Amino acid sequence: MPAATSPADDLQLEQQFQAQLTAEIAAATASLRRIATSLGEIDGGPVDAIEALMAGGKRMRARLCFWSWQGHRARAISGTRADTDTVPVLAAASAIEFFQAAALLHDDIIDRSATRRGKPAAHKAFASSHRTMGMVGDDAHFGVGAAILAGDLALIQANDLAAHAGQLAGVAPAFNAAWHRMGVGVTLGQYLDLASEAAPAWGQDPAHDEQRAWEVIVAKTAQYSVEYPLRFGAILAGASEEELDEMSRVGIPLGEAFQLRDDVLGVFGDPKVTGKPAGDDIRENKRTVLLARTMAALRTADQERLGALVNSGSYADSDVEWVTEMMVTSGAIDQVEGIINHKYAQATAALAESSLSRRAQETLRHLADQTVRRDR
Amino acid sequence: MPAATSPADDLQLEQQFQAQLTAEIAAATASLRRIATSLGEIDGGPVDAIEALMAGGKRMRARLCFWSWQGHRARAISGTRADTDTVPVLAAASAIEFFQAAALLHDDIIDRSATRRGKPAAHKAFASSHRTMGMVGDDAHFGVGAAILAGDLALIQANDLAAHAGQLAGVAPAFNAAWHRMGVGVTLGQYLDLASEAAPAWGQDPAHDEQRAWEVIVAKTAQYSVEYPLRFGAILAGASEEELDEMSRVGIPLGEAFQLRDDVLGVFGDPKVTGKPAGDDIRENKRTVLLARTMAALRTADQERLGALVNSGSYADSDVEWVTEMMVTSGAIDQVEGIINHKYAQATAALAESSLSRRAQETLRHLADQTVRRDR
Repeated sequence: MPAATSPADDLQLEQQFQAQLTAEIAAATASLRRIATSLGEIDGGPVDAIEALMAGGKRMRARLCFWSWQGHRARAISGTRADTDTVPVLAAASAIEFFQAAALLHDDIIDRSATRRGKPAAHKAFASSHRTMGMVGDDAHFGVGAAILAGDLALIQANDLAAHAGQLAGVAPAFNAAWHRMGVGVTLGQYLDLASEAAPAWGQDPAHDEQRAWEVIVAKTAQYSVEYPLRFGAILAGASEEELDEMSRVGIPLGEAFQLRDDVLGVFGDPKVTGKPAGDDIRENKRTVLLARTMAALRTADQERLGALVNSGSYADSDVEWVTEMMVTSGAIDQVEGIINHKYAQATAALAESSLSRRAQETLRHLADQTVRRDR
Repeated sequence: MPAATSPADDLQLEQQFQAQLTAEIAAATASLRRIATSLGEIDGGPVDAIEALMAGGKRMRARLCFWSWQGHRARAISGTRADTDTVPVLAAASAIEFFQAAALLHDDIIDRSATRRGKPAAHKAFASSHRTMGMVGDDAHFGVGAAILAGDLALIQANDLAAHAGQLAGVAPAFNAAWHRMGVGVTLGQYLDLASEAAPAWGQDPAHDEQRAWEVIVAKTAQYSVEYPLRFGAILAGASEEELDEMSRVGIPLGEAFQLRDDVLGVFGDPKVTGKPAGDDIRENKRTVLLARTMAALRTADQERLGALVNSGSYADSDVEWVTEMMVTSGAIDQVEGIINHKYAQATAALAESSLSRRAQETLRHLADQTVRRDR
């Protein structure tokens, strides 16, 4: 007979999962380090960079995967003890975290981010060790090259763990297909974002600009950060097609809300909490839904000023302040908060209607809260 | 009864394989394009870049994989017709070629190469379409970002095809493990190369410099370009551990000879044939076995001049000419040609002693000739 569960049990299970995930990531990193040592006189460079990056982070994607898995399998099995069944989901959760490390290593180059989680971004850290060690050549270029390779290494490790996960659970074809779709989608989504930020004539058609912003959100964030982690867990638990679709109905709106919250924090977040300067997203010329809504709500003269700024891609501090102010006074920020609430409600309604176990629903709703109602 | 085979049969089989490989690569590219279209208003950017790059190339690694597979399975099955059995080896060969595309896309950024196979390197092509389309922001940085993402996409596609290959042949665990080891090894080998090119105090200990150059060759080229392609084919054909080791005994010396030939061509190759300026490797400050041998053979005054150049990383045209001359007059070039011949002889001897079918041995020896005795 299934044991009764309580919030305390769930917390215990979550903590146990997180500890196992940390151990799994450490084991994979150690195996990379052994190969490095076998190759010759190599410093730990790329392995160290991956390890440092993975020490931080909320591991949200891994947790979504775990609780989706738990919630689908719990209909058959119950109790608080994680057992040998967790091996595949641990491999999948680690795969997701290595993939995320790869994405961040490459993104920070692409976005020219100097810091990541309050520490120097990897390409900056490699450049400064180039200087410290008196190495030959251009330090910034060395930093970029080394960080590209560190990202490649993390991606290769992610793919190996993903292949393991599918095999271990006996669902390799379905898992591999989902994993591939996720990787291709987010990579093309990043390109969509890059091309969108560089597209000329922004602001001439705010509805079209908003549509592009939504395309970026779905491809780059919603599928990758929420929908697929939920689907991966379900696939490993042997869920049906209908149950997988349930996870998409939860994951897409939650992922959209997650990105909209990110966009709001990118302008209005407290720099002490987010670890990024105020208005950073404006300076980086990110073409968000928030920005498109602002444009649509402004009077003609202000529209012209905003359009000129975005199409030049260059902002003085006073411009950043002005854009921030326009986002508020135009009512755009309220509109976006409204959309976040709506998407959140959609996601939690879909969660309640899903066939997930009650405890998984509760934990995932808690995770959804953290995803949408956060300050960093 | 197995049909008798002839060189004409082998040529026919090789041509058939190449045509099937081209079709397999085209199918994978088309599937990437379908995902791109489904995501929204995306131009083909990264997919186009991969496709353009993969249209060229000698596909040496894919052919090594195919003939190793053919030579191991031919002991049971013979004839010239490729049949449904080729499905796994086609997936593996395509995986190798997509991996190679990923490596080139990222390498050309790291090495600041402006051209690849006589055309603009991808990061340069993206930068120039940024200019042509009047896009916003820094064109060179856009080019680097887009080419990083194109490389990531090619790597993701490679890993998916590799996972398929192992599954289709029913050898997923062994194939995945070898695939992972290859990917980790070459990525760390690239880093070893990058760090080696930037290491200070080159030339103070030529024996140590040569040792580092050999470590780079083994990690970055010999394992990746020859040993693992041969092993992949063998694994897919169900070869034994002893047969896999035979492939390493062929692959490592052949891969070493391949890289030494590359190093010689990087200085002495005909620009009209190689598509690279004469002495390009010297300007790029590549720290080859050839360079270490030159250093070891020079008199003190010349050693000091060479050491100063390499440690500054900056060469006038007259410096490039002088280094080229020293490589000849010191006798270093003859030493390296001697090593190439020795490694080639080792590889072909190991090939003759292997349990591969006679026709595979002959075709692989032909491939070995092309690998070592080439002008580009």
